[in-house]
Amino acid sequence: MAELEKALADIAAEMAARTDRGNVATYIPQLGKIDPQKFGIAVATNDGSVLVAGDADEAFSIQSISKVFTLTLALGEVGDALWKRVGREPSGNPFNSIVQLEHENGIPRNPFINAGAIVISDIMLAGHRPRETIGEIVRFVRFLADDDTIAIDHAVAASEQATGFRNFALANYMKSFGNLRHPPELSLGVYFHQCAIAMSCRQLAMAGRFLANDGRHPETGHSVVSAERARRIASLMLTCGHYDGSGEFAFKVGIPGKSGVGGGILGIVPGVGSMAVWSPGLNANGNSQLGSIALEMLAKAMNWSIFAPR
Amino acid sequence: MAELEKALADIAAEMAARTDRGNVATYIPQLGKIDPQKFGIAVATNDGSVLVAGDADEAFSIQSISKVFTLTLALGEVGDALWKRVGREPSGNPFNSIVQLEHENGIPRNPFINAGAIVISDIMLAGHRPRETIGEIVRFVRFLADDDTIAIDHAVAASEQATGFRNFALANYMKSFGNLRHPPELSLGVYFHQCAIAMSCRQLAMAGRFLANDGRHPETGHSVVSAERARRIASLMLTCGHYDGSGEFAFKVGIPGKSGVGGGILGIVPGVGSMAVWSPGLNANGNSQLGSIALEMLAKAMNWSIFAPR
Amino acid sequence: MAELEKALADIAAEMAARTDRGNVATYIPQLGKIDPQKFGIAVATNDGSVLVAGDADEAFSIQSISKVFTLTLALGEVGDALWKRVGREPSGNPFNSIVQLEHENGIPRNPFINAGAIVISDIMLAGHRPRETIGEIVRFVRFLADDDTIAIDHAVAASEQATGFRNFALANYMKSFGNLRHPPELSLGVYFHQCAIAMSCRQLAMAGRFLANDGRHPETGHSVVSAERARRIASLMLTCGHYDGSGEFAFKVGIPGKSGVGGGILGIVPGVGSMAVWSPGLNANGNSQLGSIALEMLAKAMNWSIFAPR
Amino acid sequence: MAELEKALADIAAEMAARTDRGNVATYIPQLGKIDPQKFGIAVATNDGSVLVAGDADEAFSIQSISKVFTLTLALGEVGDALWKRVGREPSGNPFNSIVQLEHENGIPRNPFINAGAIVISDIMLAGHRPRETIGEIVRFVRFLADDDTIAIDHAVAASEQATGFRNFALANYMKSFGNLRHPPELSLGVYFHQCAIAMSCRQLAMAGRFLANDGRHPETGHSVVSAERARRIASLMLTCGHYDGSGEFAFKVGIPGKSGVGGGILGIVPGVGSMAVWSPGLNANGNSQLGSIALEMLAKAMNWSIFAPR
Repeated sequence: MAELEKALADIAAEMAARTDRGNVATYIPQLGKIDPQKFGIAVATNDGSVLVAGDADEAFSIQSISKVFTLTLALGEVGDALWKRVGREPSGNPFNSIVQLEHENGIPRNPFINAGAIVISDIMLAGHRPRETIGEIVRFVRFLADDDTIAIDHAVAASEQATGFRNFALANYMKSFGNLRHPPELSLGVYFHQCAIAMSCRQLAMAGRFLANDGRHPETGHSVVSAERARRIASLMLTCGHYDGSGEFAFKVGIPGKSGVGGGILGIVPGVGSMAVWSPGLNANGNSQLGSIALEMLAKAMNWSIFAPR
Repeated sequence: MAELEKALADIAAEMAARTDRGNVATYIPQLGKIDPQKFGIAVATNDGSVLVAGDADEAFSIQSISKVFTLTLALGEVGDALWKRVGREPSGNPFNSIVQLEHENGIPRNPFINAGAIVISDIMLAGHRPRETIGEIVRFVRFLADDDTIAIDHAVAASEQATGFRNFALANYMKSFGNLRHPPELSLGVYFHQCAIAMSCRQLAMAGRFLANDGRHPETGHSVVSAERARRIASLMLTCGHYDGSGEFAFKVGIPGKSGVGGGILGIVPGVGSMAVWSPGLNANGNSQLGSIALEMLAKAMNWSIFAPR
Repeated sequence: MAELEKALADIAAEMAARTDRGNVATYIPQLGKIDPQKFGIAVATNDGSVLVAGDADEAFSIQSISKVFTLTLALGEVGDALWKRVGREPSGNPFNSIVQLEHENGIPRNPFINAGAIVISDIMLAGHRPRETIGEIVRFVRFLADDDTIAIDHAVAASEQATGFRNFALANYMKSFGNLRHPPELSLGVYFHQCAIAMSCRQLAMAGRFLANDGRHPETGHSVVSAERARRIASLMLTCGHYDGSGEFAFKVGIPGKSGVGGGILGIVPGVGSMAVWSPGLNANGNSQLGSIALEMLAKAMNWSIFAPR
Repeated sequence: MAELEKALADIAAEMAARTDRGNVATYIPQLGKIDPQKFGIAVATNDGSVLVAGDADEAFSIQSISKVFTLTLALGEVGDALWKRVGREPSGNPFNSIVQLEHENGIPRNPFINAGAIVISDIMLAGHRPRETIGEIVRFVRFLADDDTIAIDHAVAASEQATGFRNFALANYMKSFGNLRHPPELSLGVYFHQCAIAMSCRQLAMAGRFLANDGRHPETGHSVVSAERARRIASLMLTCGHYDGSGEFAFKVGIPGKSGVGGGILGIVPGVGSMAVWSPGLNANGNSQLGSIALEMLAKAMNWSIFAPR
């Protein structure tokens, strides 16, 4: 544990000194206001400890990291029937590409690109009003993180609603293929709100523990999802969790992760623990630049690559 | 060990009974002659055992599985400079797609699609005649498998040379972008011969052991590649090893693997062992249909998913 | 003139007998109700005659034919600055493709595919409310056709508004690139209404006369557009007027034309006259199947190909 | 005639003064050596006159302009069966794009992009040795131009043979779809030689006369092709003759034309005459920069647009 504590402190110190921090996302105006000097990291181990460094208790917009939680929820509701409407393959394209949808009849490649997550939102809407579905998502994340203070940043949600033209395009496009069941603006309403959930690294690391623990809530031991499903979600994080930089992240870091344009990354080491990192500047693929480096350093220091003998 | 022995026997029995066996590749005429009823499986564990079932000692054309060995060799020769000419991302396209090359200036997405492997062949040609490079590859595979009987099936190589128009297209296309240094027919000569290496499941499982053992030859303990490099090769197998079915294989099987259109798959469980399976019929993505199912059953029976707590 | 009269009668008779009439567009529900047996044809010559055959006085939904009139209007308002936001090249893709927009930064290839026409609508909106712009378009078409009875079919407009998800996708997608200045739903409001204008073959042929007469209103002699602009609009009709079947139409018919999914086609023979044909069944490219054949027969009978010596 | 003579002299004078002359093609090394100051223009009218200005008697590499002559020949040999293997639509892509072939099963969009012309070469090879087919093409061009001095520049042919990797890629790619009947290197041998024919503007203008005269040789009156076929070839020139700049050329110049990367353009005014222009510098679409401008000026001065009333 001392080793991990030292690793986190070293990483936080080194990251604070870096000057090339990537570029903060500006296409969502509200996100463009974040201080690029922020850096936080947190690890929640399966044995119940939580270690942090840097700005680990400051909430940020989790954005696409929310896709891990909504996929989990939607699989719980409709099971593997979900895979008729969303694929399981890396996209080979940017996160907001529409080309693939034209070539593949409106079926998004995986649940972690925008189009896929919008279909997931549409699935969760079945029989509910948007407000109810959004409430369900927030309650689920609070439950996973054991923290009732987690909430949506409504200014961010409104900002995305007002400027998310490309997501409107994706949703309407899939609707034209019949792959959304509800009016696009309702499915998008859910999507924009889930992305606007604000969480700290500590809260995120806590919320991810079930994926490192074969699907069980580490404290209560209750099953959130089956072991098989937890592993499969982790495999999707590895192959598709960083958009068109997923191969690179797997190559360098070697752990399943999911990034968001808010600058956060959630990482999972099966059997060991869950971790979260946050640095708002993004690299060319739209993933946190320092966050990726920090997780690479951490995985190396702790020998956490899932491709290493254990 | 008895558990593994039983698992292999059960799988071989079940696979023998299956009637939906996929379709044998016919675009290489020589491969189209193989009996689709064949099925073999072998596991070489890190502690030195080899267990087999079915037609595990019958040689077949390893085809794209050879890309794992040539990538390893080429990295040994030029190191990470290799990544300037080949990417590390899943392609989101079929194994022989040329579209991506047009959009990305002749840089193939990863070393496991055809275009990427042809660049690797071109890299290994530097300073050599094709015959020398081919000889080097065969010697390397023999060394890895501890078996000097491994050889190239020249009828298969000739068959590909005569009909591999799409590979000629890929090579000439990359040459037009300056991403081949030698005449395309020479780089392809190496490529066609490496694909035509014939090996049995037993030999393949033996040859893959170093990747399950952090880069070290399991018997001698000598380092074939560094631990980091072994892990990175495994990560590429997981994200890119099954063409546009890589996400699916990771999702269902959960271990790094590399398939070939000859119907073979090489699988790696870090710290545990290496395995090979062979069934000539392919699924829609060009991967062995029963081979994929067999490895899914084996990984489940032995709890070998790299996404499971260990 | 007797020759033309006979040609029209012959064509109408032959078309009535055809059984393979293509498929009526159903993606706009209101259009799916049209009787596929309908066939009309009309020619308005530059010397002031109008000859008709078949259902030439029955109004139908002009749909994309309206793009000729709105392009003319928008060029009149902003001149060649229009071409900064819309290209002039055939698309090589279906009429509602979105792929090209992703590869070319939201600039549609030409004003006659949906995306291009939506930008034109957006241009015409400048400084106006949608209702005003729609009114201006209708007044312009009435003026061109010398017929104040021309009107919008509001049931069709409402039908498109309710189901035109792909057009919503295109508009939002271009908006994300900054190539729409107004809220997408406003530009689309104009677009859906212009498409829903109902006209007969006679009215359409009348409205197209200025393009066959170097831009001048044939009766008054007033200039609607400059001669150069009239020719350029005709050239765009030839190269882009039939979506991904434009080359085929130029090859077989040899006159500038613009088709609509309502089954109408407007054709122009410079110096001779304007013509319209209507048959609701469409071919694979979304152009009127019998309409294309009828114009091919007419152009051949009258030696009207612009590629023929005159 | 004096008017035309003056127009040509004015154009040649103005073009000589231009400093922005585009860039000479360098991907064929032999072409890169041409003096960019060269400019020639020639018009052969249907009444038998030939008027020239500038370097109109200097031979240059006709390159893709040859595709007009080989298409004519191949249509004469196999008739409309040709269209089963080549399309008639603008490509919406650069002249050497391979993307379209992957999406459309190896059928090139039209006979004027490289892939299409290679199929045409393959068609003409049937039953012949490459040398015979090349001889036939040269004889045909000499016949059309009434000039037996026209010959292939073998240095250019060799230069293309040695460096034309992208054309090798296109040919092998189509071969993989079965759309070449001969070994790709043979079809390419014909193709490279036809492109290397050297002609002056005067010779080219002479050779194009039959297309402006409804298919008849203007002096003898003999039919080279039927009137319908001549018109259809002209329509393909208009819609596809300038690669992805075809729409622009039709818009601005308004006459059917075919360009080559050697800097030449052949233009046709049905009923009036044939013309050729040459300036080696190319614009972004690979068409002669000054050549396009010169033809625009000429068409305007003489009122030759096929979209104008005549």
